[in-house]
Amino acid sequence: MVEKYYLIPIPPLPDKQISGRYEESFVEHRRVQLQEFVDWMCRHPVLSASEVWMHFLTCNDEKRWKTGKRSAERDNLTGLLYCAAICPPEKQLLASQVDPLFENSNNFVHSMDAAVKTLFAIANEQAKRYQIQMKKDYQRVGEGLSDMAKALLKDERPETATGVCLSNSVGQAAGVFIGLAQVFGEQPKRDWIPFSDRLHIYRGILNTFPEVIGVQKYATQKKRECERRVGDQKMPNAQLHEVNRRVDVISYAVLAELTHFRSERDVHLKETMRNFITAQIGFYQDIISRLQVAQKFFE
Amino acid sequence: MVEKYYLIPIPPLPDKQISGRYEESFVEHRRVQLQEFVDWMCRHPVLSASEVWMHFLTCNDEKRWKTGKRSAERDNLTGLLYCAAICPPEKQLLASQVDPLFENSNNFVHSMDAAVKTLFAIANEQAKRYQIQMKKDYQRVGEGLSDMAKALLKDERPETATGVCLSNSVGQAAGVFIGLAQVFGEQPKRDWIPFSDRLHIYRGILNTFPEVIGVQKYATQKKRECERRVGDQKMPNAQLHEVNRRVDVISYAVLAELTHFRSERDVHLKETMRNFITAQIGFYQDIISRLQVAQKFFE
Repeated sequence: MVEKYYLIPIPPLPDKQISGRYEESFVEHRRVQLQEFVDWMCRHPVLSASEVWMHFLTCNDEKRWKTGKRSAERDNLTGLLYCAAICPPEKQLLASQVDPLFENSNNFVHSMDAAVKTLFAIANEQAKRYQIQMKKDYQRVGEGLSDMAKALLKDERPETATGVCLSNSVGQAAGVFIGLAQVFGEQPKRDWIPFSDRLHIYRGILNTFPEVIGVQKYATQKKRECERRVGDQKMPNAQLHEVNRRVDVISYAVLAELTHFRSERDVHLKETMRNFITAQIGFYQDIISRLQVAQKFFE
Repeated sequence: MVEKYYLIPIPPLPDKQISGRYEESFVEHRRVQLQEFVDWMCRHPVLSASEVWMHFLTCNDEKRWKTGKRSAERDNLTGLLYCAAICPPEKQLLASQVDPLFENSNNFVHSMDAAVKTLFAIANEQAKRYQIQMKKDYQRVGEGLSDMAKALLKDERPETATGVCLSNSVGQAAGVFIGLAQVFGEQPKRDWIPFSDRLHIYRGILNTFPEVIGVQKYATQKKRECERRVGDQKMPNAQLHEVNRRVDVISYAVLAELTHFRSERDVHLKETMRNFITAQIGFYQDIISRLQVAQKFFE
């Protein structure tokens, strides 16, 4: 599909990993990324309707699978040849309108790529921070309180205790903090890891876009050369018309991709952010309700 | 007072520090520790009523201050001599009852000292973790989201935006996370630092108790020696009575301190834990209400 749909950024496949590739957390990681991949493909108006994609999604017969695979391999309408199949609007595009658009898009794609890479790195750091360090910290707090409870128990006299003894209260608080250690350790599965898995798709798309925009830029340069040659009367005007037509096909196709990407990410990123923030709120609510259990022992 | 009230663990004075001793946070630190010191002294039935303490607390005249100071310095009823002023119950203490009590108290004091030291270290580590690392982490998350918002803004068309643009929503979330960085950085002032300041008093008290218990142990050993000498008819029985009486003064005094410490810490530690947990709950509630502001932008 990468070969065939030359001007369409194909979303990235799930991460690969040699060691530990059957570990539960990594399998779940890839499952989410695969779902994201399939969703993204299915929402694309051209990719979702493509024969090879339908074949991949629906074929469950080994023989037909091989036939379909071979037919896809024999497909000649790949790369720029595929562009011959694109029927853009008749209206010619004006360089003065289109050039700044692509210039801006190129700028945007690079900025967003950098932002995604930073957020991806932050997400992975934060996931580890909670899974390892915060978990350990809360475990230590719990153990520290537990030691305190054990010490207090040595000097408590049941008969003097007014209701609940302090050692018991501190011990209960210790249990709450040891429970919190688990909550902190598990939390990245609910916020940072899904967040980073959803950013994965952008890493692939934004990686491909500069190349796609580059094709359009290259075509535009070629068109300008042809215009000069027509000016120098080294090329017939009719041929320039054909060149313009071909360049417009590329420009229209790339603009369509940029428009599609804009509307996709508006929905996708919004959902990503909403899920992340909702998971964080749930996390802090869980912590509060556990701390309230501990609080009751010191009223 | 340390010299005079030989058998009473005097609470520790606030921390000293050469460099940065006028920094606001350190001054606040010492203010809390000084308040804890004064409170602890005032709640002690003997210390609070002592002349030198009353003088320290109430004297506001320089001349009287000097006179009082000199009179305290001339005080001869210090150390074991002060014990002569103690009138314990007439009832003789039985070694079989008292010895296991002191053995246990000694054991308890060492365990609690260790637990307090661990919790004190944890509290200081956690305070730094939030003031430095967590603050930095949330700042980075905010900046990452801010970069994303700036990137998105480059590719947004006001006319296509349905109400709020994504760049604005992500930018708002970025602001919330940068605000959270401040909340994380300030939080130790409300939980871990007051917690550690309240543990300060135990560090001093628990440091002194082994010595106080040691005095009682030493007196008990001396008493046994005297008993042997009476058995060997090397000491008159009447003298042993006097020795027993003196040892009982020490035992009664130390037992009174242990009992006082038990009831003090029951109230003080309970309050410490309650304040700490309440501050943590408030912290997480603040985070939730801020995240809910961000959440609204992705509904």
